[in-house]
Amino acid sequence: MELLQRTLQRIGEVDYNACQEAQRRLDNLTKPPGSLGVLESIAVQLAGIQGHPRPELGEKVVMVMAADHGVAVEGISAFPQEVTRQMVINFLNHGAAVNVLAQQAGARVVVTDVGITGAALSHPDLHSRRVRPGTRNMAKEAAMTKAEAVAAVEIGIEMVSREIETGAALIATGEMGIGNTTASSAILACCSTAAIEEITGRGTGLNDQVLLKKQAIIKQSLAINQPDTDSPLDILSKVGGLEIAALTGVILGAAAYRTPVVLDGFISTAAALIACKLNEKTKPYLLASHLSQEPGHQIMLKEIGLKPMLHLDLRLGEGTGAVLAFPLIEAAVKIMHDMATFDQAGVSNGH
Amino acid sequence: MELLQRTLQRIGEVDYNACQEAQRRLDNLTKPPGSLGVLESIAVQLAGIQGHPRPELGEKVVMVMAADHGVAVEGISAFPQEVTRQMVINFLNHGAAVNVLAQQAGARVVVTDVGITGAALSHPDLHSRRVRPGTRNMAKEAAMTKAEAVAAVEIGIEMVSREIETGAALIATGEMGIGNTTASSAILACCSTAAIEEITGRGTGLNDQVLLKKQAIIKQSLAINQPDTDSPLDILSKVGGLEIAALTGVILGAAAYRTPVVLDGFISTAAALIACKLNEKTKPYLLASHLSQEPGHQIMLKEIGLKPMLHLDLRLGEGTGAVLAFPLIEAAVKIMHDMATFDQAGVSNGH
Repeated sequence: MELLQRTLQRIGEVDYNACQEAQRRLDNLTKPPGSLGVLESIAVQLAGIQGHPRPELGEKVVMVMAADHGVAVEGISAFPQEVTRQMVINFLNHGAAVNVLAQQAGARVVVTDVGITGAALSHPDLHSRRVRPGTRNMAKEAAMTKAEAVAAVEIGIEMVSREIETGAALIATGEMGIGNTTASSAILACCSTAAIEEITGRGTGLNDQVLLKKQAIIKQSLAINQPDTDSPLDILSKVGGLEIAALTGVILGAAAYRTPVVLDGFISTAAALIACKLNEKTKPYLLASHLSQEPGHQIMLKEIGLKPMLHLDLRLGEGTGAVLAFPLIEAAVKIMHDMATFDQAGVSNGH
Repeated sequence: MELLQRTLQRIGEVDYNACQEAQRRLDNLTKPPGSLGVLESIAVQLAGIQGHPRPELGEKVVMVMAADHGVAVEGISAFPQEVTRQMVINFLNHGAAVNVLAQQAGARVVVTDVGITGAALSHPDLHSRRVRPGTRNMAKEAAMTKAEAVAAVEIGIEMVSREIETGAALIATGEMGIGNTTASSAILACCSTAAIEEITGRGTGLNDQVLLKKQAIIKQSLAINQPDTDSPLDILSKVGGLEIAALTGVILGAAAYRTPVVLDGFISTAAALIACKLNEKTKPYLLASHLSQEPGHQIMLKEIGLKPMLHLDLRLGEGTGAVLAFPLIEAAVKIMHDMATFDQAGVSNGH
């Protein structure tokens, strides 16, 4: 709890002077003011985060957190639970979508086991930090104790701190955990007034019948656990997941280190919801990459106040959407450094 | 006219067998079927275009067509007409947004003067192919004769053909022309039932008063010229622009060469509207990059049947949005080549 508290206290305001200076520079570049839209907002945001009007980017890292969900026994996923483990091995062998897309974006993939079930996984590139072998079945009892949830959050903080201390300047969130759209919908249900039917989607590909079952299981989980909607840690521990908690830690840790975090899809954004509830100063450090096919994702993003850049109908997770947004963020930075000003180029600025 | 006719006749169907094979491969990769959304559609589309289930990408080129608009004298732009010329010089000196973004994407920028006003521009990297020094004022008379419009279309075909013959495998459209959102709105008015007020936007940044004037000028141009809405060449010549015509040629030429074309924003998509009306087989060769802030852009894209990938509130043109989409298209191709299959990775496929 101590690391979490310290991290929450360390999250500071962004530098609004640097934002203003960045905006002034943008308005001097050879383009109509504001015409680069979101790229300009990103440049200004990064200036504020880094406290410098011309932000720089260095190493890019995707933090993939993996864990299992006890609620998977209820049959609410299109894939069996062992796929969590199998996909983590696939990540470590560079065969998954996130590996391919991260390589293209020049980013490293850092994989952490925060609670996969079954025998210990061993691989030189895997960070083995199991809090417990999967959560408990939230349809029957709390998914985690509060101590377990905090332990997972703190693993996320530790992992991201280590990456930033050794050079990472842009963080993306990714995850693997069969059953984790169910947990994310349950978290969203605690943070919004939308109906369960509105915020529960087909995950990796459920049919109508299983979708109804998933909705019923979420309702049952909320009824049994009665999460205190004013307590983000109560929500997280009762109906969350170990990898979601770890991502909450990644997000808080990055914000504490004044480092921008690119959110992937539904599960990552559930972690961000919790992070923002733990400390609302986290929000200016966040970038939303894409709008997922999960119907609740849009509601989550609105809740936090973020607008996604990519509309690609992704529903994979792993960090794939976040990694696809890396070149856009780099483009925003490059614009600040490499474009000519009206004066330099001898272009009339229309005034 | 002969080159245009030959090009229109050469545009063939895409290879649906290759599409099906590509989809089968995608369904075997370690991800839930369809979970990479638009990236999967792009991979399938490129397979169809190239006639090969595992498409490859080579050199990327942004074709920037520049010309002036006689209608600019009506004061419908936030910038004076000389900015067309100044920005072209900026492109040639690598100072503009499209240069910075193209460099980041590893793409070449090819700039063609199809009708800038004033003294001849000379630069080793500029293709000087002026049809005439800007269009006539469409609020008073036809912007071009049909012969002039066809000449500009054929320049686009020639320019893109040369690039593809020397290695370009992915084309983006870009443009510069003060006044060209006015012409593009007029083209859209001829191709849809939407009201002028719905499809006329603030371009590079008009205030309310000038926006109203712009709408009135478009209405006047349509009333005076009475374009035959069944004749794309009549629309293009009467209320279009030289750079728009040249982009229509770029699009048709690329399709004839079975090469994918990434559309930028409002002006590029106006050119695509005309191209699709000239030959509807053009559509499968098109990719929409971003959704512009111009309100008519969404209507245009729907008219053609395209969905944009990026939502960045751009309103710059030049090809900036199209270039930003290049990494997404490359990602789609990389997925096809580098991801592990379920068998290779020993991952359960859920069946």
